[in-house]
Amino acid sequence: MSAQNPTEAPSATPEDADKVMGRLGALAGTQVTLSIDAMGGDRGPAAIVAGISRSASKNDSVNFIIHGDAAVLRKLVKKHKRLEGRVEIRDAQGVVSMDEKPSQAMRRADTSMRSAIDAVKNGEAQAIVSCGNTGALMATSMIRLRKIEGVNRPAIACLWPSRNPQGFNVMLDVGADIRADARDLLQYAMMGASYARNGLGLENPRIGLLNVGTEDHKGRAEIKDAQELILKAAGIGGFQYEGFVEGGDIPGDRVDVIVTDGFTGNIALKTGEGTAKLVGDFLKEAFKATPLSRIAALLALTSLRRLQKRIDPRRVNGGVFLGLRGTVVKSHGSADATGVSAAIKLAYELAASGFSDRLAARVASAAAAAQTDQ
Amino acid sequence: MSAQNPTEAPSATPEDADKVMGRLGALAGTQVTLSIDAMGGDRGPAAIVAGISRSASKNDSVNFIIHGDAAVLRKLVKKHKRLEGRVEIRDAQGVVSMDEKPSQAMRRADTSMRSAIDAVKNGEAQAIVSCGNTGALMATSMIRLRKIEGVNRPAIACLWPSRNPQGFNVMLDVGADIRADARDLLQYAMMGASYARNGLGLENPRIGLLNVGTEDHKGRAEIKDAQELILKAAGIGGFQYEGFVEGGDIPGDRVDVIVTDGFTGNIALKTGEGTAKLVGDFLKEAFKATPLSRIAALLALTSLRRLQKRIDPRRVNGGVFLGLRGTVVKSHGSADATGVSAAIKLAYELAASGFSDRLAARVASAAAAAQTDQ
Repeated sequence: MSAQNPTEAPSATPEDADKVMGRLGALAGTQVTLSIDAMGGDRGPAAIVAGISRSASKNDSVNFIIHGDAAVLRKLVKKHKRLEGRVEIRDAQGVVSMDEKPSQAMRRADTSMRSAIDAVKNGEAQAIVSCGNTGALMATSMIRLRKIEGVNRPAIACLWPSRNPQGFNVMLDVGADIRADARDLLQYAMMGASYARNGLGLENPRIGLLNVGTEDHKGRAEIKDAQELILKAAGIGGFQYEGFVEGGDIPGDRVDVIVTDGFTGNIALKTGEGTAKLVGDFLKEAFKATPLSRIAALLALTSLRRLQKRIDPRRVNGGVFLGLRGTVVKSHGSADATGVSAAIKLAYELAASGFSDRLAARVASAAAAAQTDQ
Repeated sequence: MSAQNPTEAPSATPEDADKVMGRLGALAGTQVTLSIDAMGGDRGPAAIVAGISRSASKNDSVNFIIHGDAAVLRKLVKKHKRLEGRVEIRDAQGVVSMDEKPSQAMRRADTSMRSAIDAVKNGEAQAIVSCGNTGALMATSMIRLRKIEGVNRPAIACLWPSRNPQGFNVMLDVGADIRADARDLLQYAMMGASYARNGLGLENPRIGLLNVGTEDHKGRAEIKDAQELILKAAGIGGFQYEGFVEGGDIPGDRVDVIVTDGFTGNIALKTGEGTAKLVGDFLKEAFKATPLSRIAALLALTSLRRLQKRIDPRRVNGGVFLGLRGTVVKSHGSADATGVSAAIKLAYELAASGFSDRLAARVASAAAAAQTDQ
């Protein structure tokens, strides 16, 4: 697949996006067991089990271990006939709340989150999905799974609707850590390139470093240092470095991967989501404004649904934790069945492709090369 | 005017927004002279003179001193009859380029930017408008106008379309300085409150501090320190402090003023603009997709124009520099006549209301109170 050259492909449509997101569907048939934290989401376990059921109906090759209050989960699972024989329930009475401190949550042994992570640690499942507290999920994953050799700070990568032919850009870190020095940003570039290659099918992804301007003299000291490190590593990392990019390039087509620290990335992500939602709501109001505009809305229904699908954050639900010995997909806390199912699909594809091992191999070879280089 | 209570006012419409933005139009009749840097924009002096002409036709109480290549400007001004007798041309041969380093630009005495600033410094004009290099404009303004007593780092404030009754939120700093410590963030809160009061007519604006989560334990150390300082200063500053806010709150209705450092603010601003543009472009494509959707677009034309106006960044064009002895409005580099005219309107209203002096008085009284407090 070569989606690299924008002149070869028209601007992305929802169909393209589905194609790309389903690229690893070629791996269907690869049996995968996913470990699901069923308790952490804002909508409770019912929404999560409904999402699992939706995924199970679409993909015969996936089974589940789900973690939480066994009595509650048994009742929920019974409601979905298609889950018969495909779900194992693990009782875990503790629930990590959304406002619990990560340092506290990671010490509790009885939580559904910890139980879900341990199933991957023990080799019973190949990837974890949780809608729970992000900080707690990262802290517990780091303690239980451990970091890949050579990675200092793991990162969370998200997919962002964009003007690129593949339909999405990768941005990281969007919230694993509020700090990042130049070497961390270099590792984010390596890991982001690996994710874009395996997740979006881009042979040689274009990487940009997020800054307040594109001129070389702009920005904070650590960003200028990172620029030098990333430029040097482009060959080994298998990516092209395109220089500094600005906020407007995140949904643009200048680069495929946007590298930044977790503070800035998290705020950019939520600003983008909030702005898209504002414009969408204003659009709905505009169509309700006059009788004529209501008729127009009816006529344009298919096109508007197409637009809605294109910018629907539930379709790309799932931040991926990069830099750990195991694949962890963090779904939105408020995800409904559609959102949970999207996160499960992503987890399945990454697990089936052996992404976690590929990423570790790439980071190791880069570290070895840097050693030789010195 | 009481736009404070959301239960009293329906969600903002473009008409509301115009009303708010034209609130200081009650000051029409107050004679103001504006100093315009005619050379710095990406579209050249023609677009800027066209914007001046548009403003002149709408407002009889404003005159202009424009700075740049006199021969070029004379020709352009002659094309607009309505500018006869209302424009004075100052020859300045130097032009600050968009990629020039601020430290270099501020040393050049022959530029149109410097000449424009000096007209306010010398009391010949009440506010400056420039489409030029932001960093250079800030550096030169700081050197020539000087900072208000008690302000460490000046900030750039922008208006952001929002769900609030007043139609816009204020965000600062969006790019004056890439660093901000806790005391700087406190000053941004004071200055942002003053701008919201004078620019948006909010008696007691609600302030939020931008962070990666709303829980008190989240975020960088300087942000947690700033939270304590801002909470203490709420009474003196004449604002309510609402706590940490996230990126999604920037276009929301939880607060009226969003305080952050210039690195984060600049990236959030550009991410929001880029996302709104992406959704707008996707919408246009959706309406071109089928014959039915094209008919729908025709039927909904008025409503769609209304939407476009509501999210058009040109309508709120103009970052305001806060913390200087004089009012400086920075227009988008790529502003066309509509954008330049919006920036001029903002500069007129701020100059006519004596905003700069009011802000200085508020900062001085806060500093005095803090002294007594210790």
